[in-house]
Amino acid sequence: MRTYCTVAVLLMLAGPSAHARQSADAAPQHHLMPVPASVRIEAGRLPLDKSFAVAVTRHRDARLLRGIERALRRLQARTGIEFSHEIKKDAATAKLAIEVAGPGEAVQSIAEDESYSLNVTAQQATLKAPTVVGALRGLETFLQLVARDAAGSFLPLAEITDKPRFPWRGLLIDVCRHWQPVEVIKRNLDALAAVKLNVFHWHLSEDQGFRVESRRYPKLHELGSDGLYYTQAQIREVVAYARDRGIRVVPEFDVPGHATTWFVGYPRYASAGGPYAIVREFGIFDGTFNPTREEVYRFLDGFIGEMAALFPDAYWHIGGDEVNNKQWNASRAIAAFKKRRGLKDNAALQAYFNQRLSRILSKHGKRMVGWDEILHADLPKNTVVQSWRGQKSLSEGARQGFNGILSAGYYLDAMETSAFHYAVDPLPAANGLDAAQAGRILGGEVCMWGELITPENIDSRIWPRTAAIAERLWSMREVADVDDMHRRLDVVSLQLEELGLTHLSGPDTMLRRLAGTEDIEPLRALLRLVEPLSLGQRMRARRATQLTPLTSLGDIACPDAPARRELAALVAAFLRTAPRDPASGEALAREFRAWVELGRSLAAMAERAPLLRDAEGLAADLAELGAAGQEALTFLSEGKTSPKEWTASKLALLDRAAAHKGFLRLAVVSSLRQLIVAAGSSGSAGRSLEPRGHSPDGP
Amino acid sequence: MRTYCTVAVLLMLAGPSAHARQSADAAPQHHLMPVPASVRIEAGRLPLDKSFAVAVTRHRDARLLRGIERALRRLQARTGIEFSHEIKKDAATAKLAIEVAGPGEAVQSIAEDESYSLNVTAQQATLKAPTVVGALRGLETFLQLVARDAAGSFLPLAEITDKPRFPWRGLLIDVCRHWQPVEVIKRNLDALAAVKLNVFHWHLSEDQGFRVESRRYPKLHELGSDGLYYTQAQIREVVAYARDRGIRVVPEFDVPGHATTWFVGYPRYASAGGPYAIVREFGIFDGTFNPTREEVYRFLDGFIGEMAALFPDAYWHIGGDEVNNKQWNASRAIAAFKKRRGLKDNAALQAYFNQRLSRILSKHGKRMVGWDEILHADLPKNTVVQSWRGQKSLSEGARQGFNGILSAGYYLDAMETSAFHYAVDPLPAANGLDAAQAGRILGGEVCMWGELITPENIDSRIWPRTAAIAERLWSMREVADVDDMHRRLDVVSLQLEELGLTHLSGPDTMLRRLAGTEDIEPLRALLRLVEPLSLGQRMRARRATQLTPLTSLGDIACPDAPARRELAALVAAFLRTAPRDPASGEALAREFRAWVELGRSLAAMAERAPLLRDAEGLAADLAELGAAGQEALTFLSEGKTSPKEWTASKLALLDRAAAHKGFLRLAVVSSLRQLIVAAGSSGSAGRSLEPRGHSPDGP
Repeated sequence: MRTYCTVAVLLMLAGPSAHARQSADAAPQHHLMPVPASVRIEAGRLPLDKSFAVAVTRHRDARLLRGIERALRRLQARTGIEFSHEIKKDAATAKLAIEVAGPGEAVQSIAEDESYSLNVTAQQATLKAPTVVGALRGLETFLQLVARDAAGSFLPLAEITDKPRFPWRGLLIDVCRHWQPVEVIKRNLDALAAVKLNVFHWHLSEDQGFRVESRRYPKLHELGSDGLYYTQAQIREVVAYARDRGIRVVPEFDVPGHATTWFVGYPRYASAGGPYAIVREFGIFDGTFNPTREEVYRFLDGFIGEMAALFPDAYWHIGGDEVNNKQWNASRAIAAFKKRRGLKDNAALQAYFNQRLSRILSKHGKRMVGWDEILHADLPKNTVVQSWRGQKSLSEGARQGFNGILSAGYYLDAMETSAFHYAVDPLPAANGLDAAQAGRILGGEVCMWGELITPENIDSRIWPRTAAIAERLWSMREVADVDDMHRRLDVVSLQLEELGLTHLSGPDTMLRRLAGTEDIEPLRALLRLVEPLSLGQRMRARRATQLTPLTSLGDIACPDAPARRELAALVAAFLRTAPRDPASGEALAREFRAWVELGRSLAAMAERAPLLRDAEGLAADLAELGAAGQEALTFLSEGKTSPKEWTASKLALLDRAAAHKGFLRLAVVSSLRQLIVAAGSSGSAGRSLEPRGHSPDGP
Repeated sequence: MRTYCTVAVLLMLAGPSAHARQSADAAPQHHLMPVPASVRIEAGRLPLDKSFAVAVTRHRDARLLRGIERALRRLQARTGIEFSHEIKKDAATAKLAIEVAGPGEAVQSIAEDESYSLNVTAQQATLKAPTVVGALRGLETFLQLVARDAAGSFLPLAEITDKPRFPWRGLLIDVCRHWQPVEVIKRNLDALAAVKLNVFHWHLSEDQGFRVESRRYPKLHELGSDGLYYTQAQIREVVAYARDRGIRVVPEFDVPGHATTWFVGYPRYASAGGPYAIVREFGIFDGTFNPTREEVYRFLDGFIGEMAALFPDAYWHIGGDEVNNKQWNASRAIAAFKKRRGLKDNAALQAYFNQRLSRILSKHGKRMVGWDEILHADLPKNTVVQSWRGQKSLSEGARQGFNGILSAGYYLDAMETSAFHYAVDPLPAANGLDAAQAGRILGGEVCMWGELITPENIDSRIWPRTAAIAERLWSMREVADVDDMHRRLDVVSLQLEELGLTHLSGPDTMLRRLAGTEDIEPLRALLRLVEPLSLGQRMRARRATQLTPLTSLGDIACPDAPARRELAALVAAFLRTAPRDPASGEALAREFRAWVELGRSLAAMAERAPLLRDAEGLAADLAELGAAGQEALTFLSEGKTSPKEWTASKLALLDRAAAHKGFLRLAVVSSLRQLIVAAGSSGSAGRSLEPRGHSPDGP
């Protein structure tokens, strides 16, 4: 690593006002996400024009060339500049010279070297990497550096050296509870690569669906999938697509629980007789593999052997979570087996099952990954434990000698903000682990569970929030300025669209269907202000199944609503000064007037369109909140303290408005609360009150 | 066919005011597109609720069940109603009873029976069809019938019997000049099925790309495709996907011209020595198969034999267009061959080649289709001629005994309006053909050529205009009310989004990248008013190649801009009455004021964003046009005649504004011209002037 200070460290040292300071010093800002290990941006530019060309001077292979070609297409599309795609050999004639030492691993492992350096002078950009994967990471940084102004497109001068903090940085997609076709997976792989994530954890079997074609056991997909499964050709296609982008594919076939769809075609491997049917509800179900019968292991051996040829990765995820034990407790044969083997409880029985499974995996060259529940002293130490229940089990595993990856705090269906996820560190500063133990924390995985996602709304659940987590997993621990993260996240979010992601366009599409018209402005305005419920809240509000249409406002609204941050910033600016800042006061007044108006148009719209009834309660709330906000502004601007009864009635209104309506909750209540509380307490300017409007929800 | 009048016939008899009359009579309107052969809608409703269920009472097979499942998902998504997907056997308990006589053809042919009847009473909808394909067509009609109001979702009472006018109703997609991945093809197949088109013509080889994996001749895709080709597994997947939707897949491998990429890997089959490289320019190039060498036919025999296993359709498209003859004229060996065989010119040589090819195709069970140029008396009469040069060659072929399909007038890259294409009939009333000859006109194909399309903008070029052509090819000739077509097209356009089409969301996505911000309102407002240039105009304005980024405003703007129709309607309403209609006058004034404002904000935006410079000329024009429009309204509202000099200067302005700026042209000039001319000629109320702003452009 080079010796000069990184922007990240500068930011950390300078504290909360670093952002402002940095602009004051006129040090050029960058939009890189994740922030590189070391980055220096300087004044000056490398202009981009039609003379642009790439040279590859050392190692070249097809994967590298394809990666460069993809980058060139994105560069062209974004800059509008037409240039040759011919890859030169002579660095002297190229605006971007790429020097790669070698191909890297034949099958990418957690040891793959992903480092690179990128140096931009006024004459040339130079990208150096020990491996093709490192070069791919560097190309993404190169694309993120591209800027434009009135004079045209250019790269700022930069010196970057970079490598990831954690070697395992993943996204899980559950394609079982709802089906996701190949194109959804591919565009998300593109997005993973754009933010330097390197693992696609493919959750392929569940009570609600078995999603892979098995030629050896065809009743798995024939009877377990409703016809919605990936052919083996498609699996190979996706694995190759991922490898082209430096992404490992870790398949998960959940056993012994969450396994109903295995038994639709093969009931004899369950711990109780069938028949079994694909489950439409969500939750934990009874169907569980029978760990006491040898034919179960022969079956799993055969299945894993077949799949091992499709999934080259060294790791294989066995699930292992949420076994409800009902079938095991009900079976006399299983009780007898436990007794015979001295297995004192069901945990011991599952550990026995996992040990058997681990040996089968070893035979096929695979290491085991499983959820928290598999943690057991008897497992081989190369097992990886994925923690979904909390950081504690991660540390506990590390102390016992197991490698671990964190997913607690990265559950997207909690519908938390980017800032919330950004704060979750797999290895926080005070972690209580020694160096060897800490080294066992391999990284983390974002989880996109499938209860409430369809191809239409999955992207808006994953993106852009996952980019913030990607930064947590790649960048140094000290990169933690939330405002700066937001600034860069907005840029990355737009750039993700060039890869085909639909997180910005999808909501409009869904709104048009819901409203039955192209005229959706009031609904777009509403979506600025509201957020969807967490999975848990939503299921409590009304239970959804695999057959529930996911096309309501609650399925369309996105977490991290834009108005949450905007309003919080305005309120903070307004309250910071005395006398009150008139500019932010006027902006707030405009916003509150718009709420009143929006309340009216939504009510009118909902009357005509039965599917918009969800918005009626919100419309009424918004009208009242807008009026209350205007009154609070008046008190504050005039330096008056609001009457106690007024404050009490408005706080009651806020409590009512904070409750969800339909499957939505307002994202702006806490900012408004700050204003109303401030209006009631004279001299409260600048007091900080409740930074967030709702408490974190568990999955 | 049943005996009561069809809506279409009513519309025709009633003339232009049918639309108004129909509403006056309170006969319920429908949104069906294409209009069925016979349809009667009546007052009353079949309500849709969670008790909804489907019964299949007679023939059932996997294809039918999959089709029903897809329809149920769309119905659920649109209505928000959750209901069981279990298919019953007892019609009595079902809201939709489906009775299909049999599976239909194993390989769908042009003789497949696509008819169906759909009867909706207050208790039940009954869909009857002789084949699964007929049932699929009927399910689309069922979905189009779904309506909703304040009381909820329902079907109107209806009696429909339906069958297509033409058996060959297709869409060509050129995936060669620009690559289109599988998901683009699939979503467009979904859309074809939604408007009852039944042929996907897959243009798979060109000078710019060879897009299919060949195992027998792997250098075809390895060297001819830049790595952008369909694997054989993907071809099978697409063909199966199409069959599931009642769509035939007709592959086109263009020979002997447009063939450069065959020769990149196999130069010895060309008429002149290599080397050959993938062509990046667009046009007509020299590389042409050598029709004089036997090894060429052995090669084509081998290739066709391999592909015949992938493409089950009875037809095979050989292209055959635009042979430039250069290589043939330059070769002494070819001259000698012609002399030896008595082939008097290159047309005769190509006919010889086509006859040889026809025999090879016969051997593999295929019939030949080719473009106009293949028309030659010596070809077998089961050859199908696809006419791109005009209706004349279609009739000529029919007279000679050949079957024909029309594509002239259906070229989407001409960027014409829906109304323009809608007026093009493969078999107009005055066709000069006898019954047997007329029977040889099989239908038509919409053509989406690939010079200026990417996965990002292809949908907005194809849709919704192709739905209007689909109606021309399915519905009776007399279904020709343009206003009614527009009314229904707007509904279908929205419904296409539920299938994943991006014709409405794609432009926003592209605008965000162009502007570098989510705040794209001024650009959206501009896109309401402008249209892209035709391929010819665009290439004359600035030559594009395969490497030109297609991300400018001209690539984003859509044909058939909404304001074209809206403004024309307002102007017509305003001019129709004396004194002038104040409501439409005020609406026009608002519009013109908005243009002035828009001109300003676009100019400001373009200053900051170099990629928006294209909009600067338009911004200036809009500001001037808006002012002129307001002045014209004042003259007209006050009943004054404008001074001659004023009129002259405004007409000069209109001429300037009618010229394209960048790759865009204003779609509203002709409506404004009507106003300005009317302001200059007192007493001109109601005069009809120039209905369209630009003349049809050739491709």
